[in-house]
Amino acid sequence: MALAVPPGDSQLRHVCVACKHIHYENPKLVVGAIVEWQGRILLCRRAIEPRHGLWTLPAGFMENHESCVEAAQRETMEEACARLVPGPLFALIDVPHISQVHLFYRAALVGGTHAPGAESLETELFDEADIPWDAIAFRSVSFALRAYFSDRSRGQFELHSTVLGPTTPG
Amino acid sequence: MALAVPPGDSQLRHVCVACKHIHYENPKLVVGAIVEWQGRILLCRRAIEPRHGLWTLPAGFMENHESCVEAAQRETMEEACARLVPGPLFALIDVPHISQVHLFYRAALVGGTHAPGAESLETELFDEADIPWDAIAFRSVSFALRAYFSDRSRGQFELHSTVLGPTTPG
Repeated sequence: MALAVPPGDSQLRHVCVACKHIHYENPKLVVGAIVEWQGRILLCRRAIEPRHGLWTLPAGFMENHESCVEAAQRETMEEACARLVPGPLFALIDVPHISQVHLFYRAALVGGTHAPGAESLETELFDEADIPWDAIAFRSVSFALRAYFSDRSRGQFELHSTVLGPTTPG
Repeated sequence: MALAVPPGDSQLRHVCVACKHIHYENPKLVVGAIVEWQGRILLCRRAIEPRHGLWTLPAGFMENHESCVEAAQRETMEEACARLVPGPLFALIDVPHISQVHLFYRAALVGGTHAPGAESLETELFDEADIPWDAIAFRSVSFALRAYFSDRSRGQFELHSTVLGPTTPG
């Protein structure tokens, strides 16, 4: 791959020097869900890098030919073997330095059942007081969880948005 | 390019047979704005395919290393030479058969000034009664505009979501 400006374009793109394919790099959507069951929230402890061993909401890269809600449902099934009833979009978090946009939907767990999928060490339903804040895998997950508990305590949910920048080293 | 399942993956991906680069195809974000000035809405008549000659909200493919709001601002500047003050996210429209997610933000036009950019034949501020409904370029734009005028008339805006399927031929 080499960097070049294709004809009619205004930006540098990755172009394969062998097959000439233009590889447009666009931001990727990461979609997940805040899945609630009897007041508790479903978290997954990651069995993969990055952030192996830390806790996250079920979420992952959206695939072609699915909707955002379908992506949240698929990821919840893959990571937590859990079915959800989707609710409204709750958080949109830009992470421009890694060209990602994270979406989290509100959702209800079906039947209270969950189990670790291939990418999870364990899954667990947490009361707000027991959330392992010091062991959350991603800042976007912490942002979404804090906003969720804040909205829930005042009895009104709205869409929350933020832009996360790079963390300061050290 | 050929289709193959990379090691550790579960899906077919496009892999360059020459350089072995794995080309992950993920849904693309198209981001735009419903830009209002003194009650009127900014539309652009397209100078490019697809939908050459039809009217659209300023919108386009999000680029790496920008936020969603920055993408809406950039596209509005590129297509309508217009500056906006961004508001909340107003619409999220899945278009899974073409693997796109369209976002539209509410926004206020700065100074009332606009002019066609390189991709527009003309730009114009429309009263609701004058919107060229039969000449709107994309269904997601029609959806967002109708929801916008509906919310505006009742004096309360909320996030609107939908999933658009393929159109029936004929």
